Amino acid sequence: MSDIKVRKLTIHSNDKGDLLKGFLKSENQNVDVNEVYISEIKSNHTKAWKKHNSMTSNLIVAYGEIKIVVLKDDGSFFSEVISKNNYKMITIPPGFWFGFKGVSTETSLLLNIANEEHDNEESEEVDVSKIKYDWS
Amino acid sequence: MSDIKVRKLTIHSNDKGDLLKGFLKSENQNVDVNEVYISEIKSNHTKAWKKHNSMTSNLIVAYGEIKIVVLKDDGSFFSEVISKNNYKMITIPPGFWFGFKGVSTETSLLLNIANEEHDNEESEEVDVSKIKYDWS
Repeated sequence: MSDIKVRKLTIHSNDKGDLLKGFLKSENQNVDVNEVYISEIKSNHTKAWKKHNSMTSNLIVAYGEIKIVVLKDDGSFFSEVISKNNYKMITIPPGFWFGFKGVSTETSLLLNIANEEHDNEESEEVDVSKIKYDWS
Repeated sequence: MSDIKVRKLTIHSNDKGDLLKGFLKSENQNVDVNEVYISEIKSNHTKAWKKHNSMTSNLIVAYGEIKIVVLKDDGSFFSEVISKNNYKMITIPPGFWFGFKGVSTETSLLLNIANEEHDNEESEEVDVSKIKYDWS
């Protein structure tokens, strides 16, 4: 099973509005992009837990600040708060339970660049209480 | 030359934050995604004019409200203001001069899903004054 990847992304400053680089095929040769969508996460709300059986998710925060949490094979958790100030792409391969929390005061926007189109049959969801994690 | 395309996109309401569908390969069979990036456009600022010689841009507003303007072959202009309230993907094939204006009070975010990685050699830029258009 491949592991969670964290990649720093580049921001080009511009006085009319910055340019935030995101996914580049040359840096992700093994990813054929089949879907790009935006998930809003309201302030202090948690979307968890979800697991994909074949989709790889490449996650970028477009707006706000989001805590990404992934349950690792050894039972410990990977977590990172990403935003424009900590501008990164987090790649979650299939097989991991993961969740998100909006940690800025406004609704945050999470960009998901995926190698498959979303399909309910391919993913599983359990209630946030089913995997013990201190989201506070 | 292919033409500018406007496609309505779907929003799935969710009480923790909506899900905004974006690019789907099944609806864009001819597009192999090679880059995804975010362009910020400050309120009342205009980023114009740019032309790509081979890149096709698939544009979605992730946040705020942006006026997209494209100079058509017949010398007239295509324009549309897109936002979450008018949630669409606009496809601009290579060969067209185009520009953007941030028309909400906050900085807007434009998502570009492109069939090529950005390359300065492949695009041309001219000053906003070079193509007469009433941006007000």
